[in-house]
Amino acid sequence: MLTLDKIYNARYVLREIIRQTDCIVAPKINPEADVFLKTENLQITGSFKVRGAYYKISQLSPEEKKRGIIACSAGNHAQGVALSAQKAGIKAVICLPDSAPISKVEATRSYGAEVVLVDGVYDDAYNKALQLRDENGYTFIHPFDDENVIAGQGTIGLELCDQIPNLDAVIIPVGGGGLISGVAFAIKGLNPNIKVYGVQAAGAPSMVRSLHDGKIEELSSVATIADGIAVKRPGDLTFELCKKYVDDIVTVSEDEISAAILALMEQHKLVTEGAGVVSVAAAMFNKVPIKGKRVACLLSGGNIDVTILSRVIDRGLLMSGRTCTLNLELVDKPGQLKDVSRIIADLGGNVIAVHHEHTNEGSDINGCYLHIVLETRNFDHIAQIKNALLDSGFRVMADN
Amino acid sequence: MLTLDKIYNARYVLREIIRQTDCIVAPKINPEADVFLKTENLQITGSFKVRGAYYKISQLSPEEKKRGIIACSAGNHAQGVALSAQKAGIKAVICLPDSAPISKVEATRSYGAEVVLVDGVYDDAYNKALQLRDENGYTFIHPFDDENVIAGQGTIGLELCDQIPNLDAVIIPVGGGGLISGVAFAIKGLNPNIKVYGVQAAGAPSMVRSLHDGKIEELSSVATIADGIAVKRPGDLTFELCKKYVDDIVTVSEDEISAAILALMEQHKLVTEGAGVVSVAAAMFNKVPIKGKRVACLLSGGNIDVTILSRVIDRGLLMSGRTCTLNLELVDKPGQLKDVSRIIADLGGNVIAVHHEHTNEGSDINGCYLHIVLETRNFDHIAQIKNALLDSGFRVMADN
Repeated sequence: MLTLDKIYNARYVLREIIRQTDCIVAPKINPEADVFLKTENLQITGSFKVRGAYYKISQLSPEEKKRGIIACSAGNHAQGVALSAQKAGIKAVICLPDSAPISKVEATRSYGAEVVLVDGVYDDAYNKALQLRDENGYTFIHPFDDENVIAGQGTIGLELCDQIPNLDAVIIPVGGGGLISGVAFAIKGLNPNIKVYGVQAAGAPSMVRSLHDGKIEELSSVATIADGIAVKRPGDLTFELCKKYVDDIVTVSEDEISAAILALMEQHKLVTEGAGVVSVAAAMFNKVPIKGKRVACLLSGGNIDVTILSRVIDRGLLMSGRTCTLNLELVDKPGQLKDVSRIIADLGGNVIAVHHEHTNEGSDINGCYLHIVLETRNFDHIAQIKNALLDSGFRVMADN
Repeated sequence: MLTLDKIYNARYVLREIIRQTDCIVAPKINPEADVFLKTENLQITGSFKVRGAYYKISQLSPEEKKRGIIACSAGNHAQGVALSAQKAGIKAVICLPDSAPISKVEATRSYGAEVVLVDGVYDDAYNKALQLRDENGYTFIHPFDDENVIAGQGTIGLELCDQIPNLDAVIIPVGGGGLISGVAFAIKGLNPNIKVYGVQAAGAPSMVRSLHDGKIEELSSVATIADGIAVKRPGDLTFELCKKYVDDIVTVSEDEISAAILALMEQHKLVTEGAGVVSVAAAMFNKVPIKGKRVACLLSGGNIDVTILSRVIDRGLLMSGRTCTLNLELVDKPGQLKDVSRIIADLGGNVIAVHHEHTNEGSDINGCYLHIVLETRNFDHIAQIKNALLDSGFRVMADN
């Protein structure tokens, strides 16, 4: 049975393994609340997962430890389990779908785990892990639906109560529900007046639907940038704990998640993954009632592929008017490109890409198209540049 | 005169104004040393500058406070002074060159300072600031060559000695020299055995040259991505302090700085600016003798424009084989693009941009060019894709 005692025991066991991550004030996230960021993205392995994984391993019998452990994950759980096994000095086998990003495979290997790449998706890797467990007598380390794993994650709740005096509410990302179950249990055990809110991606709302329907629902598919919480079915144990201890669970959109990732980079110099910032997205876009409250947003992880990060930045720049693409139809005569370039330069726009095209079904036989990508200051600046081009007789096409 | 007492006094004055930023272990930065990151990029305003600025302001007379202060900066000093003045409840005027990024202008304004945009570059803004000082009786807050400013920055030295037991060395970014002067003074005052190393960008080595020549040298120009330390001339006071307390100063290249920014994002989930990571670049690329030592790298700031960050990521991806551009010469007949796409997809490459061009002076009249931008796993993966295309009879052009 989960008890506060067990969570305190986990804190003791973890004291020299994990970092007690910092809580950082974040006045710009939501000006109507006092927002704090609990930076588990700065935890070793880049996410909170090491807490539950290590505590779970510490509770195995000597016999179980000798046989070793197995886990299945395409992400943070893999790294958490691998590092924990390394620190505990036991064998770990991790099954990953072969579609997993090479960076995550390499990180898992770097902690000394044996990686088994399985043809297919997560479910295939999961079945392979169960098969290897049965064949070799490994202990399977579940990513969330396990009392000791939940107790390990709950240590964050103890830290939050220590680190932030007079806390009113906590906002927590929810995938399978292990993190929020542990944190909610710890916090409600210490102070039932502190509100606990969960957040899922709108593209993977399994716990939201299950709580709404009063029974566990399995989604047929999930689709979100927050891959770390794209879970089709909540755990049995976590579902019961959420029903009992969580005040509300809400969802955020993909654009809200992207905006939160960009805001944390720009305003707080923190790299976070989609799953890690749904809590901040909920605070930024007022999905939960936090006006006038002291609120902790749990940043659960930072393991985002830089390729994705680069796309989030690009989209964020576009959506805030800091880059734009202009499509111009030109008369095909010498000097046109020079004139366009001069107008843009005079107004402080910075050209980063140009594509000049002579033939196009939509254009006059003497016309040609010019596509220019610009760095700009904001939407006003873009309008200024467009107007200057129009005033000089250039034809600026509507955005598509 | 600068004394340890003054730095302790600064720590007391700053105790409720600044954050005592975390020190984070960073085992992957240099596997041969125990590296810690002092995260002043997570300081309020995104850099250490608020320490010196606030302490300086706290030491003004009531009369000086009443008249207000003025400063000149295109970056972190502006934000540090603006926030400090707001916290101290006094008037601040900040002169910025009108070429400053809009994000920094807005951040400075958001702390309540009066911003004066000056036509031209930093030197023009500086002259304007002196003129306004003379006209209005403001106190000029120098960004580095001031004893109280240096004492404020020195508080980081006290924290490092508290936070990291048995510290062997500290690596510190150097622009005008205010930060390293204060930190070196504090650290050598507490324990002269701790080595203090400075790092400048190779494109702006003013302190390096001055120390080498034994007298202050002024550079005619500076050029680096590390704009926060692109200083043409060291301070008189800071030059003397560096001569006395700093063990060595080295330089790092632009590519080394970019690699450090990317490594901190990927491995430590921290956003840093070029000037802020020259210390990490020096540790990564063994510019100072740290083998077997316990070393703190000071991350001095994180105020990097996301546009630049996006470019650093793009370049980092290219340089590590995670994106590539293929240029193919095709025979202009139906189905060619389909075949190329299939080969790439089968090997797990992800197409992110395509440009198809029919005429080109280099190509046959029946030929055409295809430029494809791909997300790839690493250089081996790129070679695999190229070879598969060659094996199918496509002509892959050499990189330019």
